[in-house]
This record gives sequence, structure tokens and C-alpha cells, in this order.
Amino acid sequence: MTFSATDHAAMARALALAERGLETTTPNPRVGCVLVKDGRIVGEGWHERAGEPHAEVHALRAAGDLARGATAYVTLEPCSHHGRTPPCADALMKAGVARVVTAMEDPNPLVAGEGLARLRAAGIATAAGLLENQARELNIGFVSRMTRGRPWLRLKTAATLDGKTALENGVSQWITGEAARRDGHRWRARACAVLTGIGTVREDDPQLNVRAIPCTRQPLRVLVDARLDVPLSARILQGAPALVATASEDAARIAALQAAGHEVVVLPDPAGKVDLPALLRALGQRGINEIHAESGFRLNGSLLREGCVDELLLYLAPVLLGDAAQGLFKLPAFTALDQATRLDIRDIRRIGEDFRIIARPRGGESGQVE
Amino acid sequence: MTFSATDHAAMARALALAERGLETTTPNPRVGCVLVKDGRIVGEGWHERAGEPHAEVHALRAAGDLARGATAYVTLEPCSHHGRTPPCADALMKAGVARVVTAMEDPNPLVAGEGLARLRAAGIATAAGLLENQARELNIGFVSRMTRGRPWLRLKTAATLDGKTALENGVSQWITGEAARRDGHRWRARACAVLTGIGTVREDDPQLNVRAIPCTRQPLRVLVDARLDVPLSARILQGAPALVATASEDAARIAALQAAGHEVVVLPDPAGKVDLPALLRALGQRGINEIHAESGFRLNGSLLREGCVDELLLYLAPVLLGDAAQGLFKLPAFTALDQATRLDIRDIRRIGEDFRIIARPRGGESGQVE
Repeated sequence: MTFSATDHAAMARALALAERGLETTTPNPRVGCVLVKDGRIVGEGWHERAGEPHAEVHALRAAGDLARGATAYVTLEPCSHHGRTPPCADALMKAGVARVVTAMEDPNPLVAGEGLARLRAAGIATAAGLLENQARELNIGFVSRMTRGRPWLRLKTAATLDGKTALENGVSQWITGEAARRDGHRWRARACAVLTGIGTVREDDPQLNVRAIPCTRQPLRVLVDARLDVPLSARILQGAPALVATASEDAARIAALQAAGHEVVVLPDPAGKVDLPALLRALGQRGINEIHAESGFRLNGSLLREGCVDELLLYLAPVLLGDAAQGLFKLPAFTALDQATRLDIRDIRRIGEDFRIIARPRGGESGQVE
Repeated sequence: MTFSATDHAAMARALALAERGLETTTPNPRVGCVLVKDGRIVGEGWHERAGEPHAEVHALRAAGDLARGATAYVTLEPCSHHGRTPPCADALMKAGVARVVTAMEDPNPLVAGEGLARLRAAGIATAAGLLENQARELNIGFVSRMTRGRPWLRLKTAATLDGKTALENGVSQWITGEAARRDGHRWRARACAVLTGIGTVREDDPQLNVRAIPCTRQPLRVLVDARLDVPLSARILQGAPALVATASEDAARIAALQAAGHEVVVLPDPAGKVDLPALLRALGQRGINEIHAESGFRLNGSLLREGCVDELLLYLAPVLLGDAAQGLFKLPAFTALDQATRLDIRDIRRIGEDFRIIARPRGGESGQVE
């Protein structure tokens, strides 16, 4: 399949539009649509919020009669089923669109290609795969949930150049600077859920909401607390309901949390800890696409060991703390270097005085070593 | 002082020439010289090796009679004293040069400006300070020795993204890749001395010479070995004489090392370890400008704690090893974050699959925190 320069430009525009829904479409994917006729954009739109119109509908409304004979560029295959809104494939047909180009097919393998097939059956030309990588990255959490039944987990952590997150005595706040903090809140804002552990609640008592930047939707806060040690006064339990994952069946504590409006899920593993992969599946079932984890070195280690880390968002401060300080990942001692987790570095950049590394564990789904 | 575009271009050329002596001029500085007449280069040269002609002499020879009336661009103030070669200031005068521009004055505060003054007394126009920062960086070790009486110490280390240099069991080789290894040898090659500790000799038994790239001069190898535990069979003691710094006065061991051709310096501190600042001064007295240290986390920690680290050359591999593995710097536990060593990041770049950070501890000479 070859695409023209106009095709590329239109799809790039559709992706930029889709990105406007970055923080709001959950649990839906971010989708953009551009209608082009005679080399000119005649309508465009993006999906803003679940329950509201899809990108295609916004674009068709904007184009009106000009949609007839136009090419529609959609970052995700138009839906062919009745959900909260009627199928977009039908809307494109009714409007008389001549050609539909999508960046990627529906990531749900059970319905992939159905929308395009429906369009082709109506005599509309279709093409797929234009700027597919960018489209996939934009909805990496949605793709993960559709294909793996679990969200994409991005682990955010801040450390010194020698890999230390806190002093031996636990003091850890403000290792990185204000710019890194703001950047971290931007990543929180796009996540469907922010996850932490009881250790971090005990040491830092974070609010774990988005504050450093404007935000119209707060992510669900998820706390991993095997023994239900969290006090009701913890900041993570204030303001909005949280989800507490535990291995404890202490009825009184569960009732107290529920009475305060929080949800408790009991997911013990054989070791008496929270079964983290089961927690991810449970969050996937709740429509969580992207999880932003900010935890201490114990939960970080457990998430990594159990193959739950899909991406590492690491802020490094130009500071040395020395070996006595706390590290990034509590892991069992390896005896050979090939037991280590290898990463693919995807991005390195300066953020204020600090710098930020985005990396992904190699080896696909497991998040573990090949 | 303002300089023209021609001035800048000529001095940039002189700096590039000076850099050709990067690995060979020790204990002398790297110096380049360009002679420009009527907007054209009529002669150029650089200092290659101690005892051989200085940059100015090479350039004057190349220019011949064309030197008369030319402008000389020299990266370092021309010498005014008789050393192993006659003073370059005199050579420039004799050749009839009309103007002399230098990037920086002689860093030795006792003679700074004398060469230029001698030229001015002979009626030659002079100017100083063009591209001074670059010139100073190029000879940062020489400047350090002249102004602080000690070499510039660059600490090279390789770690995982979580700051680990070796497994708990000491296995450490090949954390970073081949490209990082070659790059590390490039930095070794420019150093006057390569320094390590007995811990590294025991664990890795390194040769500590330059092998991964072509090199016509091997740096002096320096071993910090408080108790003279090093076996005569250690690789660092093969091939060429090494310098062993110790706190031990064990006459038999000292004699054995000396009999094998090595030099032993006894520099105990009150704790029975090697007095590292005293060692730096001793190496400065031997004409060592730049030290390239490659040591383990114990000696790394001591060097940092005692203010001996001027620059950090840190290779980070995209790997996670977890908290049980060995860290970068053995330091006492801090109780507050402001006790940490803050760094200025000077450069970050990809080297093969790894990346490299060049940073300097803040707070000037001490290499310690402000």
C-alpha cells in the first residue's frame, strides 16, 4: 500500500487532533478524523469524552454536504457496532464519503477489520496502516487492554545519577526539580489510573492527583496495601474515591474503607501479598488503559519482577547520594548478568536541571528479559 | 576586546590543530598555532611531544618569509623562558610577526602575561582571550596542575540505569557495550595516568592500558593499595613500570615491587589508608596533568568524599540490576539531602546501546558540594 504526500499530511493532522483527547477519552481511545476533498480539509474532529460523539461524527458535521466524495482520514478503524453511539462506519457511508484511510485497525482482534469490510461492502475504497506506529503509541494503553486484557503500566520514578531515590532514613522529596515535577504531572494527567504502594503512603503521604498542570479529569487512584494498613486520614483517600487492592480479608477495615466511599478489591497471592498481575487484569476489566505507577523501591521491584512494568519513566537528578541511600528496585540478588532486565531506551532529554529517560523492558508482554 | 570573523576562524583552526597533540604532549599542554597574512593561512603547526618544537616554531618554519607581517594565532600564550626549547616569544619577534592573538594566558599565575609583555615591548600588537573557554577545556589538566598543584581527575565508571556497577558477587565485566568500551579507551589515551584501586585489581585484574584504539603512548598506571596486597603477577604490573601508592611500610614488599621496576610511594593518612589528596599532589609534581580513574565503589567513594573528583565520566547501560547489586559510590549515610554532591551535567549522548554522561561536582576545587 503506498500513500501520497497529501495522505501523510492529512493523517498527521488527524493524529494531532486525536492527541487533544489525551487526558479525557478514557476508557475510549484517542481518535482524530480529517475529511479532505479536492486537496483541501473540509471537516475535522476528535473524540473528546466517552458518551460524546466519535471523531468521525464531529468531522462529518463540520463538513456538511462537502463530505460527499471526500476522503476520510481516521487514526483508528471506524467502529461497526452500536455502542453508546451509532456505528461510525454507517455515518461515513451515509455522508457519501468516497475513500476511508485509517492509521490502524481496531486493536481488538475479534473485530479488527470489520469496520473497513463494512465500508468496502458499500463500495467505499479503504486503506489501512498509514502512520500506524504513531497511532499505536498514542493509544498504547487501549491497545494493551484490547490485546492483552491488561492496561499499559508506566512506572515513574526519580533518582540521583547513582540510582538513589531516598536517603537511608527515607527522606526523598524534591530530589528532582520543579520542571521534572510538572512533567511528571503531565504523565499522570494522561493516565486512567495512578498507582502506588503503602510504603510510599507511609513515607510521603502523597495526594497522587494532578496539580502542577491544569486538568479537567483526575485519574483513579489505586493503592496496593496487602495488610490494609492505610489510615483513613491518608491523603490518597481524600477528595475522591480510591481503589484499594489488598490481600487482607479484614472485614472491619474493608467496611470502613467502603463506608468512606472507596472500593476494595481482595486479590491475595500465595505469598500473602497482592497478586499484581491479577490486579492489572481487574483494572483492565474496569476500562483502565494506562496506569501511571509511582511507588517506592519495594513495589517497584515487585512490579518489575512480576513482569508488570511496560515502560519506565525515569527522572535523573544531577546529584550523587552514595551507596547507603535507597535504590530504585528491590530485587533478589542475581548471580549472572544475563538475569538482569534489559531495556530499550526510547527517549532521553533534559527537563530543567534534571533529565528524563523513557525506556521499555525488552521481551514483550512480560516486561521481562528475553 | 573585539575579534573579527577571521580571528575566530583562525583560532578555531589553531584549537583543532592543538587537539592533534591530545594524547602525546604530556607533561606539556596541547598547543596549536596558525599564521595568517592578507586573509590567508601561510603556516600552521602544533606541539606533538615534549622536547620537540613548540607549535609556534612549526608554524613559523612552514611560513618561512611569509611570516613577516603576519598575525599569529596561538591557543596558549607563547613562552618567554628557556625550557627544553628556546622561548617562542623570541622566535615570533625574529620572524617579524606583526600581531599575536592568544586564546588564553599562561595558566601559571607566576608567569601569566610575560610572553605577551615581551612581544608588546618589541612593538608587536597582542590580544588575549579569543575562544578562551575552549582553550582552557583542552588543557584542563595542565591548567589544574599550574593553578592548583594537582592534576585534573576524571572518574570513569559504568553502571546500569539503576546505578549498579556489579552483581553482589562482584561480577561486573561487560555491563556496557563495545562502543562504550572503545570510547572509554579514548579517554584513557588522553590521560597522563590511569588510576585504580586494589579492589578492582582483585576483582577484575585489569591491564588498564589503551588497547581498543590505536595509541602511541601508554599512560602511567597508578595503583592505590594501602596494604601492598597486589601480587606481582597482577596484570597492572606487567608490560611497563607502574606507580604503587601505599600506606604500608613493609620493606620486603616495597623492595619486591621496586625490583620488578615499579615505583612505590608511601603516603599514609591518619586512618592507615592512602592519603589521596597527597597522592594527587605527588602526581602533579611528576608532571601528571590528567588522571583517568577507573575504580570500584569503595575507592570511588573515597575519591569523591575527599574532594578528589573533578569530573565524572559515567556510562549507563539500559539494564536494571536491582538493589542487591553493587552501587557506584560507597559513602557514609547522609541524613539530609543537602549533604549530597550536586553535579553540573555538561554532556549527555548515546554511545552504541549505552549512553554517556559527563558531569562535574559543583563547588570548584574541592569537587564537593557547595
